[in-house]
Amino acid sequence: MKYCSNCGKPVELLIPKDDDRPRYVCHACKIVHYQNPKLVVGCIPEWKNKILLCRRDIEPKKGKWTLPAGYLENGETVEDGAMRETFEETGAVVENLSPYLLFDITHINQLYLMFHSRLVKPDFHVTPESSELRLFDEKEIPWGEIGFKVIEKTLKQYFKDRNTGTFPFRIQQIKQH
Amino acid sequence: MKYCSNCGKPVELLIPKDDDRPRYVCHACKIVHYQNPKLVVGCIPEWKNKILLCRRDIEPKKGKWTLPAGYLENGETVEDGAMRETFEETGAVVENLSPYLLFDITHINQLYLMFHSRLVKPDFHVTPESSELRLFDEKEIPWGEIGFKVIEKTLKQYFKDRNTGTFPFRIQQIKQH
Repeated sequence: MKYCSNCGKPVELLIPKDDDRPRYVCHACKIVHYQNPKLVVGCIPEWKNKILLCRRDIEPKKGKWTLPAGYLENGETVEDGAMRETFEETGAVVENLSPYLLFDITHINQLYLMFHSRLVKPDFHVTPESSELRLFDEKEIPWGEIGFKVIEKTLKQYFKDRNTGTFPFRIQQIKQH
Repeated sequence: MKYCSNCGKPVELLIPKDDDRPRYVCHACKIVHYQNPKLVVGCIPEWKNKILLCRRDIEPKKGKWTLPAGYLENGETVEDGAMRETFEETGAVVENLSPYLLFDITHINQLYLMFHSRLVKPDFHVTPESSELRLFDEKEIPWGEIGFKVIEKTLKQYFKDRNTGTFPFRIQQIKQH
């Protein structure tokens, strides 16, 4: 941030009075521009003993496999956001969403909330964001080609919990290398 | 948002190509300025059969009672954020945090994540944000003077679950009136 989004004048990075960390401040408007983490919401879409992965057709990680997920939008519930992202990336409709894993990814100011879910039917198709969609069972997962560490961790936890038959809600952290 | 935070030129609200909702776009920088919900994190601090509430000494809802909670900061885990807010507003240290309630508040683009927690010891004090701190048992809760609907719902759910002895993670929604 270099300029005030309210008046267009340059902002200054300083610690405001009664605060304890640097913020972008506009001296003209007297506005403090707070910056906060963004929430990504997504799904593990199950169909029988398989799960649906998408091969990314956009950067970053074009060509790698992932689970459907994306930024929560203003005005949207977390569940609606996860369903929307799943539909946008896979063409599939999910149901029975249950909150499963929340990841803190502090070095990039992101949070991921992943839902356990079920495909309404095994209908999915290539989309502008995914070049290929496929149902994988556990031994077919392309572990070396998963695009993001958070998705790899989600899948590992999922298969671990599937062995026990329960998917308790958990908070985990993704650290930078 | 009226001006680009990167170059200071006016932004335009329009639906970008390959998108489906209006965004603030800077034609000079070719930047789309996305806006997303913000996450508030907080605690229900327990001490024996009582819980700690704070009387707000700042607006909004100055003079009303609430639970400690505030915006998650960049670079911070949800648990660290909830502990920090509790300390800032009550002077108390909490432990044994367990994720309990997630609220979608779509009409103000906020999410609340409230943790079940325990006071390390019954030490708390007035802070710049709270004019009074007090441990309440269930029948003492000042229901008519709780500052926010999300906090009232948190407390109601808490006392309901306490009767059963378990605090399962749940997602709920706060709607506008």
